[in-house]
Amino acid sequence: MGEHTVASFDEELGHVDRLIRDMGDLAGAMVGASIRALLASDNALAQRVISDDAIMDARQRELDDRAITLIAKRQPMAQDLRAVLGAIRMAGDLERIGDLAKNIAKRVSAVGQSATPRDLSHSIDAMAQLVLVQVHGVVDKYVAREPQALQSLRADDEKIDVKYTAVFRELLTYMMEDPRNITACTHLLFCAKNLERIGDHVTNIAENAYFVMTGSQLPSNRPKFDETTQAVSPE
Amino acid sequence: MGEHTVASFDEELGHVDRLIRDMGDLAGAMVGASIRALLASDNALAQRVISDDAIMDARQRELDDRAITLIAKRQPMAQDLRAVLGAIRMAGDLERIGDLAKNIAKRVSAVGQSATPRDLSHSIDAMAQLVLVQVHGVVDKYVAREPQALQSLRADDEKIDVKYTAVFRELLTYMMEDPRNITACTHLLFCAKNLERIGDHVTNIAENAYFVMTGSQLPSNRPKFDETTQAVSPE
Repeated sequence: MGEHTVASFDEELGHVDRLIRDMGDLAGAMVGASIRALLASDNALAQRVISDDAIMDARQRELDDRAITLIAKRQPMAQDLRAVLGAIRMAGDLERIGDLAKNIAKRVSAVGQSATPRDLSHSIDAMAQLVLVQVHGVVDKYVAREPQALQSLRADDEKIDVKYTAVFRELLTYMMEDPRNITACTHLLFCAKNLERIGDHVTNIAENAYFVMTGSQLPSNRPKFDETTQAVSPE
Repeated sequence: MGEHTVASFDEELGHVDRLIRDMGDLAGAMVGASIRALLASDNALAQRVISDDAIMDARQRELDDRAITLIAKRQPMAQDLRAVLGAIRMAGDLERIGDLAKNIAKRVSAVGQSATPRDLSHSIDAMAQLVLVQVHGVVDKYVAREPQALQSLRADDEKIDVKYTAVFRELLTYMMEDPRNITACTHLLFCAKNLERIGDHVTNIAENAYFVMTGSQLPSNRPKFDETTQAVSPE
């Protein structure tokens, strides 16, 4: 295969990259807005996140179509093919992040205004800020082609898991203190779990991005770990 | 492209189908075992589900490799390419079902023996049975090439959502009755949510399977709907 064909393939992969950049920006905006809506009981903002999800779905379809056309037209060899499939997978994870942000937004009205004590809001916000740094970071490192940075980024997912465990325990404590908190806290529990799952999707994206860039797997896969599955009491 | 090439492509897609069949059987077995482990507090069975997940991951890698080789070797046109990508996506959803079963299994020890009243066990089991019918059904209809059956199968996901809402409310009630139930009920809440998410993955698989078989989208996409996101009180 000549230089020219390879360059064209890279050019077309560049179009796919721009769509990933767009989807990443939208995913970050949706996650940020869903948490602001949750902590400020802002139903209008929540509604916008819910409707943004349709834009995200359209972007993913666009990327899929472009990727399929690219494969059909360029007939890439196995390595390039894996790069395109990697991009399709990254788009899939970004779309799932949008879904999870939408799910947080849909819980805003059920959580309501009364039930979130300041300490708890602070913990959830701190967790969300970590998640946001990861979502923006993974797309930046991919677009800038910085495979090594993805390794430390993936390692940072552990910080989200630690925060999630703390929020989980805090929520159980509030529920035990006063049964009237249970409904709202249950929804907040799912919101926190969604943030933790967004972190897992960032990890998937980092692994696919690394593979697209380097053709090899990110070394020493960190096992995903939600230690609250073992939590017997909130202490 | 001659008849012969087309037949070979179909033959190789047949190999991919057998892997999907295997993954579907394993997914069903894992979901069934995780719920039996949960309801009987069977830690050994839970451990088996957790280790089965590695087999599932290996099957998915095998399918991915085979699908990529198939594309690289056969250079299929857009329609066939979409069929292969559809199979890759189906495998992705089956792998996620395995992950969710593993997550249920990991909660078995935290839920413990004491905290599950008979009514609640019954509700969770009824929900799990619906989910199992769906998991087995979607793979059967795909392998048997019965696209029309997928339409009613997708519609049945609504029954799972209805059960989930009932279990969700029941769990909130138990938590409010006695704070000592909160920790166990929280884990059961995540288990029920995992079952509901398995139902969503079955819906994704049905949509991809329909597309692989017919080349067109399943008509009138039912929007995924978790109505507990709106639940303000358990009533």
